[in-house]
Amino acid sequence: MVRKYVYFFGPDGTDGNGAMRDLLGGKGADLAEMTRLGIPVPPGFTITTEACIEYFTNNQQYPPGIWEQLEEHLAKLEKAMGAKFGQKDHPLLVSVRSGARVSMPGMMDTVLNLGLNDDTLEGLIKVSNNPRFAYDSYRRFLTMFGNVVLGIEHNLFEEVLEEVKKRVAVKTDVELGANELKEIVKLYKELIRKQKGAPFPHDPKEQLKLAINAVFNSWNNQRAITYRRINNIPDEWGTAVNVQAMVFGNLGNDSATGVAFTRNPSTGENRFYGEYLMNAQGEDVVAGIRTPENIESLKEPLPGAYAELMRIYKKLENHYKDMQDIEFTIQKGRLYMLQTRRGKRTAAAAVRVAVEMVEEGLIDRNTAVLRVEPGQVDQLLHPMIDPKAKYQVIARGLPASPGAAVGKVVFTAEEAEKRASQGEKVVLVRQETSPEDIGGMNAAQGILTARGGMTSHAAVVARGMGKCCIVGCGDITIDEKEHRFSLNQSLMVKEGDVISLNGSTGDVILGPVKLVQPTLTGNFAKLMEWADEVRTIGIRANADTPHDAQVARDFGAQGIGLCRTEHMFFERDRILAVREMILADTKEEREKALAKILPMQKKDFREIFKVMDGLPVTIRLLDPPLHEFLPHTEEEIAKLAEEMRVSPEKLRHKVESLREMNPMLGHRGCRLGITYPEIYDMQSRAICEAACELLKEGYNVLPEIMIPLVGHVKELSVTRKNVERIAQQIMAEKGVNVSYLAGTMIELPRAALTADQIAREAEFFSFGTNDLTQTVYGLSRDDAANFLPFYVEHGLYPIDPFIAIDQEGVGQLMEIGVKKGRAVRPDLKIGICGEHGGEPSSINFCHSIGLNYVSCSPFRVPIARLAGAHAALQNKRRDG
Amino acid sequence: MVRKYVYFFGPDGTDGNGAMRDLLGGKGADLAEMTRLGIPVPPGFTITTEACIEYFTNNQQYPPGIWEQLEEHLAKLEKAMGAKFGQKDHPLLVSVRSGARVSMPGMMDTVLNLGLNDDTLEGLIKVSNNPRFAYDSYRRFLTMFGNVVLGIEHNLFEEVLEEVKKRVAVKTDVELGANELKEIVKLYKELIRKQKGAPFPHDPKEQLKLAINAVFNSWNNQRAITYRRINNIPDEWGTAVNVQAMVFGNLGNDSATGVAFTRNPSTGENRFYGEYLMNAQGEDVVAGIRTPENIESLKEPLPGAYAELMRIYKKLENHYKDMQDIEFTIQKGRLYMLQTRRGKRTAAAAVRVAVEMVEEGLIDRNTAVLRVEPGQVDQLLHPMIDPKAKYQVIARGLPASPGAAVGKVVFTAEEAEKRASQGEKVVLVRQETSPEDIGGMNAAQGILTARGGMTSHAAVVARGMGKCCIVGCGDITIDEKEHRFSLNQSLMVKEGDVISLNGSTGDVILGPVKLVQPTLTGNFAKLMEWADEVRTIGIRANADTPHDAQVARDFGAQGIGLCRTEHMFFERDRILAVREMILADTKEEREKALAKILPMQKKDFREIFKVMDGLPVTIRLLDPPLHEFLPHTEEEIAKLAEEMRVSPEKLRHKVESLREMNPMLGHRGCRLGITYPEIYDMQSRAICEAACELLKEGYNVLPEIMIPLVGHVKELSVTRKNVERIAQQIMAEKGVNVSYLAGTMIELPRAALTADQIAREAEFFSFGTNDLTQTVYGLSRDDAANFLPFYVEHGLYPIDPFIAIDQEGVGQLMEIGVKKGRAVRPDLKIGICGEHGGEPSSINFCHSIGLNYVSCSPFRVPIARLAGAHAALQNKRRDG
Repeated sequence: MVRKYVYFFGPDGTDGNGAMRDLLGGKGADLAEMTRLGIPVPPGFTITTEACIEYFTNNQQYPPGIWEQLEEHLAKLEKAMGAKFGQKDHPLLVSVRSGARVSMPGMMDTVLNLGLNDDTLEGLIKVSNNPRFAYDSYRRFLTMFGNVVLGIEHNLFEEVLEEVKKRVAVKTDVELGANELKEIVKLYKELIRKQKGAPFPHDPKEQLKLAINAVFNSWNNQRAITYRRINNIPDEWGTAVNVQAMVFGNLGNDSATGVAFTRNPSTGENRFYGEYLMNAQGEDVVAGIRTPENIESLKEPLPGAYAELMRIYKKLENHYKDMQDIEFTIQKGRLYMLQTRRGKRTAAAAVRVAVEMVEEGLIDRNTAVLRVEPGQVDQLLHPMIDPKAKYQVIARGLPASPGAAVGKVVFTAEEAEKRASQGEKVVLVRQETSPEDIGGMNAAQGILTARGGMTSHAAVVARGMGKCCIVGCGDITIDEKEHRFSLNQSLMVKEGDVISLNGSTGDVILGPVKLVQPTLTGNFAKLMEWADEVRTIGIRANADTPHDAQVARDFGAQGIGLCRTEHMFFERDRILAVREMILADTKEEREKALAKILPMQKKDFREIFKVMDGLPVTIRLLDPPLHEFLPHTEEEIAKLAEEMRVSPEKLRHKVESLREMNPMLGHRGCRLGITYPEIYDMQSRAICEAACELLKEGYNVLPEIMIPLVGHVKELSVTRKNVERIAQQIMAEKGVNVSYLAGTMIELPRAALTADQIAREAEFFSFGTNDLTQTVYGLSRDDAANFLPFYVEHGLYPIDPFIAIDQEGVGQLMEIGVKKGRAVRPDLKIGICGEHGGEPSSINFCHSIGLNYVSCSPFRVPIARLAGAHAALQNKRRDG
Repeated sequence: MVRKYVYFFGPDGTDGNGAMRDLLGGKGADLAEMTRLGIPVPPGFTITTEACIEYFTNNQQYPPGIWEQLEEHLAKLEKAMGAKFGQKDHPLLVSVRSGARVSMPGMMDTVLNLGLNDDTLEGLIKVSNNPRFAYDSYRRFLTMFGNVVLGIEHNLFEEVLEEVKKRVAVKTDVELGANELKEIVKLYKELIRKQKGAPFPHDPKEQLKLAINAVFNSWNNQRAITYRRINNIPDEWGTAVNVQAMVFGNLGNDSATGVAFTRNPSTGENRFYGEYLMNAQGEDVVAGIRTPENIESLKEPLPGAYAELMRIYKKLENHYKDMQDIEFTIQKGRLYMLQTRRGKRTAAAAVRVAVEMVEEGLIDRNTAVLRVEPGQVDQLLHPMIDPKAKYQVIARGLPASPGAAVGKVVFTAEEAEKRASQGEKVVLVRQETSPEDIGGMNAAQGILTARGGMTSHAAVVARGMGKCCIVGCGDITIDEKEHRFSLNQSLMVKEGDVISLNGSTGDVILGPVKLVQPTLTGNFAKLMEWADEVRTIGIRANADTPHDAQVARDFGAQGIGLCRTEHMFFERDRILAVREMILADTKEEREKALAKILPMQKKDFREIFKVMDGLPVTIRLLDPPLHEFLPHTEEEIAKLAEEMRVSPEKLRHKVESLREMNPMLGHRGCRLGITYPEIYDMQSRAICEAACELLKEGYNVLPEIMIPLVGHVKELSVTRKNVERIAQQIMAEKGVNVSYLAGTMIELPRAALTADQIAREAEFFSFGTNDLTQTVYGLSRDDAANFLPFYVEHGLYPIDPFIAIDQEGVGQLMEIGVKKGRAVRPDLKIGICGEHGGEPSSINFCHSIGLNYVSCSPFRVPIARLAGAHAALQNKRRDG
C-alpha cells in the first residue's frame, strides 16, 4: 500500500490536526488545527515530512504515488476555491511554503502567487479588476520563482527594477504603475530565459512540482544547516511543504497583511502586539523592507477585520494555552489566518508569560516551569547596563530583544564572524538582516538595524538567540561601502569603533558602558521557587573565591561543589612561596616554603566558609602539575631567578626536569600529594584550622575534602589517611569537632570501573567530567581545535562532548561508577563538578542516574535549578 | 582456642608434611616430608608463617600462646636429642633459619650453633673431645649472633680475627689453633659488650627468642624487599622459622658439608652434581669463601656416606618428580640431610629436565610444559656468542649460568646500578657476591667472580635471574681499591673497559664479541610442540619489517597482529615525501606527495606479505600525529627548509601549528585519516595493490586492515567505507578477489564501552593495551618516570600496569569490550597487540576472557606460546 503523503485542510474536511507536527510540520499541523477550530484559513494541503525524508534517503527521488496524491488534492483544492489551476477565467493561485517540526524562520524557501503565467494573469486582472495588482503579483512571482526555484541571483531582478524606477523617476515600488510593472514582467521573463537558456515554465503544474522540489532542497541549504547546528535540530527531521490557496493583502486599501504576537515577545507583557502593512503581501512585513504600522491603528481603516482578529487571537491563545505568533492577511476586508505557532520569545518574556499564565489560571505551575527552557535563562543572567550608569544616547530604535551589548562596530556578517573568532566583541550593524547573516548574528554581541520592525527578521532571530537587538533605528544612515554610519549627518561611527546597545530601551550609545550582574527578582524568582518545589537534584556551584561563593549563594546554590585551590597558589602574594616550594631540594625546605603559604590558604578558606555558612564546601586539594607554576621562557626564567636569588641554571634545570610530554596525563592530582605529602598536609591543615576556628566563632562549617585524579583505591587510602591524621590532630588541639567528609573525584576511567573499591575509602564522589571526557575519548581539549569542529560539523560526534555529557560513553562509565559505588556504600553522596554540571541535557542525565547534586559556575546556578526541575518533571512524566 | 604455631619433625612424630609450604615455608615443609620418608634429618620444629604474619600485622607483637608452644617443642627436641638446652654436660645446640613459601636464597638471616655460652662450651668440648672445634663453633656463633641478632657490623668481627691472624702470622682461619680461637672468643664478647653496652646474653632461651625475632624482622630488610619486588613475591606471605638440632661438618676429617643438585642446574644434564668441603660448616660452601670439591671426590674419604647420599638423592627425585637442590652434613661419617627443595635452574636446564623427565617416564607432557616458566624462556631467546666468532680468551672460570654478556667492567653493585640506569651495559666483577649485591647483579649484563663454586651465592642468584655468570675465576686478581683487575700480573683491565663473558663455557674475553640470535631446536623445540598441542589461544607477532616478520615466523608466530606503518614513513628514502605531504597547503599537493610514497609503501607490504604467505597480516593505518615527522630545533628546521626548498618561516610555522599540549590525546590515529582521507586512501591502495599482485603471483595473502584510535563508531564507518571503496576498485582493476578484513584497534575507553556499536562496523578488534592503559589510568608512559617507580615500590600499584595488564581496571574494560562486541557479532575475531601481549600473566588473562590471539614482539613469541599453553592447562585444571 502506498503511504499517505498529502493531507488536506479546508471546508470540505481536514485530514490533519495540531498534534501531527512531526508529520505535517508545525505550520501544516497548525493550519489543520485552525481549520478544525473554525477559524478562517485559506484551504490547501500539506506534503508530509516523510515524503521529504524519503526524498533525501532515496537519492532525491520522490516516493512512488506522491504525484497521484498531489493531483487528487489539487483537484479538491480547486473545488474548494471554485478556481482552477492554469485556468484563464478564474485561476487558482497558491503559495508553496516549507514547514519543519520546529519553526526555522526564514531559513527555507517560499514561493508565492504560484500558478501565474501569461494566460492566468488575464484571469487575475479580470477577477481582481486591478491590473496593477495583477502585474505586481506576477513580477513578485517571477522574482521568487526565478530566485528560489531557478537559482538566479536576487540582485539581477533588483537591478531591472531599479533601472525602471530610475527611468520613471520614482523611489518606491508602490509608486510604480501597471504599465511599468507590465514592462518589468517582460524584462524578468527575458532575464530568466537568458540566465537559464530556456523560457520560464508556463505550466502551473510544472511550476508547482519545481517549487516543491526547491522547498525540499532548501532543507539542505547552508543557512538552514547552520541554523540546525546552532539550535540542535537533527538533520533527519526534514521539512513538510504547504501548498495553500493565495489570498491577497495587496488588493488595495481594503487589504492588508500582518503578523502579531498574542503577548509581547520581548517583555512578555499580556497585550496583543503586532504590525501590519496596508496593501502589501506578507513577505513585505517579515523582510523588514517597509517599516510597518502598529496593529492598533488597524482598527480605524478595517474595524470588522480588526474585531475578528481580536476574537481569533484570544481563541487561539486559550486553545493552545500559550503565546502565539500569528500571520494574517486581509483581502478586501475579509480576514484570513495564514499561520499560528508557538511564539518565540526572549527569556524575560518566557518567564513573564509562564508566571502570568499561572496567575490567569491558564496553566499550572509545573507547566509554567516546563515552559521556560533552561538554556534560555542564560540570557537573564548576562550582564545588563548598569541602571545607575550615565551615558550619552546617540540614537534610539525599537527595543527588539533585551539585554546589553558592548562591542566594535562591524557591517557584515563575515566580518563579525572573523573578528569574533579572534576573540573580539562586535556589534553587527546592518540596513536589515537577512537569513544569510545568521552566522554573523550568532557571533555578535548584539545587532542594530536601520530598518525593520519588531517582527522583522533581525528581531525574530535575535530574540530566538537571546541576543540584544535594536531594529528600525531610522536615526542612523549606513554607508556600507565605506564601512561607517552617520547620525544626522554629524557624528560618524566607523568600523571598529565601540558602541553599546541597550536592548531593553532601544538606546544606541557611543563607547562602552558599565554593565552590572543581574539578580533573581520578580517573576524570575517566583519561577525559580516553583522549580525548586519539584526539583530533587541538588545544585551547587564551582567557586574559588569568596566573591564567586557569594554570587553562587545569591543565585540559590546549595553549596560549593568544587573549590579549586590552585588559583589560590597563583595569587600575587604567594606565588613566590609556591615557587620556593617547587625549587626546594629537600622535604624540609619544601615544608619551610609551605609554612609561608599556610596562613594565606587558611584565610582563603575562612572567607569562603563564612560566605557559605551552613552549606557544604567541597575543596579539591592541589591538582595541576607543578610546572604550571613556573615560567617557561628564557626572559621570564632570568627575571624570576633574580627575584628569587637563585641561579638561572637551577631554575631552568627545574623547569626542564618538570617538563612533560602529556601534562594532562602526568605528575598531577593525588600523584603530587603522594610524592610530596607535605603539600596536601599543608592544605589539610589550612582547611581544618579554618573550620575549627570558625566553628568556635559560631559558624556552621561543612568542609568536604576532595582528592583529585584517583585511579587506584590505594592512592585514596594513603592520601585520605594523612588528611584524617591531620584533621584529628587539629580538632584535638582546638578542642572542637568539625563534621567534615573526605572523598574523591571520579575523573579517570579506572576510578569509575573500580568505584566499588574506591567507595570503601570515600565518603563522597564527584564526577570530574572534563577529565573523564578527555580520557574516555583519548581527546585533549587543548588540542582538539584541529579536528573537533570538523567532527561536530560532519556529524562524527553528534555533539561536542565537552559541552554536553556523552551519555553513551562517558555517561555509561558514570552509571557504572554510581552503581558500583552505591553497592558498597548505599548512602554515598555523588555529584558532578565538570563544566557539564551547568548544561541542561547533562543535568537531566545526572538526575536520571541518581546523582545527589550538580555543581556549575555561579552564573549558571539558576539554569541548573530550572534544568533540575525539568529533569524531575520529565522523569515523573516518564515514570507515570 | 590458641592456634598451633609450632610444628615438630623428628623420630617421635612429625606434625607437618611437604604439602604445607604456605604454613611451614618451603624448608620447613620439606624437612617434615624428608623425615616422614625416613631420610636422616636432624630433628627440630618450625614456627609457622602465620606467626610471622600476625607478628607484623599486630605491630610486632607475638601472638599469645606462642612461647608456651615453643617451650613444649623445645622439650620434645631435647628428649629426641638426649641433650638439654644450656646443660653443661650434654648441651643442645640449634640452628635458627628462615624459610619462606618460596626460596629466597641468602636474603634472610640465619644463626647457627645457638645455645652456646661459657658453660655449654665446656660440654661441647667434652662431647666433641675437640677444643678447637668447640671454640671455632663458639666464635662463629658469636659472629653470627652479634651481627644478625644484635646488629653489630660484620667487619668489626673480621677486624679482630684479622688482627689475631696477623699477630700469629697465619693466613687462613683453618690455621688458627684452639688457643687463638679462645682468645678471639674473649675479644668477641668484649666487642659485643662495648658495642651494645651489655654483655652477650648467656641464657640459651633468651638467645633463641632473640634469634627468632631477628629472623622474622629480616623479612623486611632491604635486600629481602628488593628480592621480593624483582620476583613478584607478595609482602604478605611472611617467613617461617626453622629451629633444628645442630649437626657438625667441622668435627674433623670424617666430617664434611655440602650442597648438591640431583641434575645439573645449568645445563639440565641428568647427572648428580654437587660440591662439598671437608671439615667445614654449611655456610662456608654457600658463602663461596673456600672453593669446594666436586662431589664425586667424596667417594674416597667417606664411601659410606657417599653411597647413602646417592641413594637418598634418587629417592628424593623420584618422590618429588623434580630436580632437587639438597644440603647435607656428614658428622663423624654419618650423613644428615639439612634441606631439599625444588632446584633453581637456568631456562636451558628447565627445558632439558622437563623433556628428559617425560622421556624417563617420570612426568607427562603437560606437566613438563608447566615445569618451564614462560618468563624464564626469555633467557633462551637472548643473543648468544656467535659460535663462528673468533675471540681471545683471557681467563676461564666456572660456567655458572649460561648466556652471553658484553659490557663495561664495574666493581661495585652501586656503580652497576648507576651506570645501568644511564643506559650503559655493564659486567659486574666481584671477589665474590653477597646478598647486598642483588640490585647490581640485576642491573648488570653478566657477573664474573674470582672465588666461589657452582653453588656459590653469585651462581645461584644469577641462575635465578637467567643472567650470564662465571664464578671461581682464579686467573684474575681484583684490586677493588684501584677499580681494576689483572691477569697473570700482565694484562690490566680497568673500570669502564669492555669485556665479554660466555656463560656456557666460562670464557672471559677482552673486548666485545659478536652475538647471534638463538633458534628453536632440540628439547626446546620439542617442548614448544607439546605446548602448542594444548594451547588454544593464537600467537601472532608485532612486526614492521620483512626481517622481523621472518624472525616471528621462525619462532612460530601464526600471523602478524600489528604491522605499524609509521616506521615505514620514517625511512630515509621517503621521509622527504612525507614532509612534503605535511607541508602541502591543498589536498592536491598532499595527494601529489602521497603518490610518491605509494610505490614504496606497496613494496613494503609486498615483502611482508611474501614472508607471511598463508598467514594473516594486520596492518595499522598511520597512527602518530604529523608533527612527529617534522624536526623541532631551529637548526634542524633551517637544514630541512634548505633541503626542501621552502622558507624556514613556512616550515617553522607548520611545526608551530602542529604542536600539541598532549600529543597522546591529540590529532592522530583515525582523526588524521578523517581530516586527511587521502593519507589512508594511499595506504589502503598500497595494501590492496600489493595483495592483488601477490595473489596473482601465487601467494596466499590475508591482509587485515586496522583503523587506529577509534572512539566513536562513526569514525570507523567513515574510514572503513573509504577502505572498502578503494579495495573494491583495485580488485576490480586487477581482476582478483583478496579476502581481506577491515577492523579496528580498541585502545580508548570509549571504544570498549561502545564495542557493541563498533562491532557492527568491524570485522575484528585488536586491543591496544598500551594506549588503553594510558587512558584508563590517565597516565602518560612518557611522563610516569617521576612517580611510577615510587608507586610500584610503595605498593600503590601492585604492579607496573605497562608491564602486566591491570586486570581490575584495563582488564575489566577489555571484558566489557569482548562481551559487547561478541553480543553483536558472535564470531568477532579479537586480539591484543599492546606490549602486554608477550607477558605471561597478561596472556593468561587474554585466554581467560576468550581472545582469539595475542600479538607480541618476535622474540617473545616462544614465551607467548608457552604462556598460552600454561593458560590452557591452568584453566582446564580450574574447570576440571
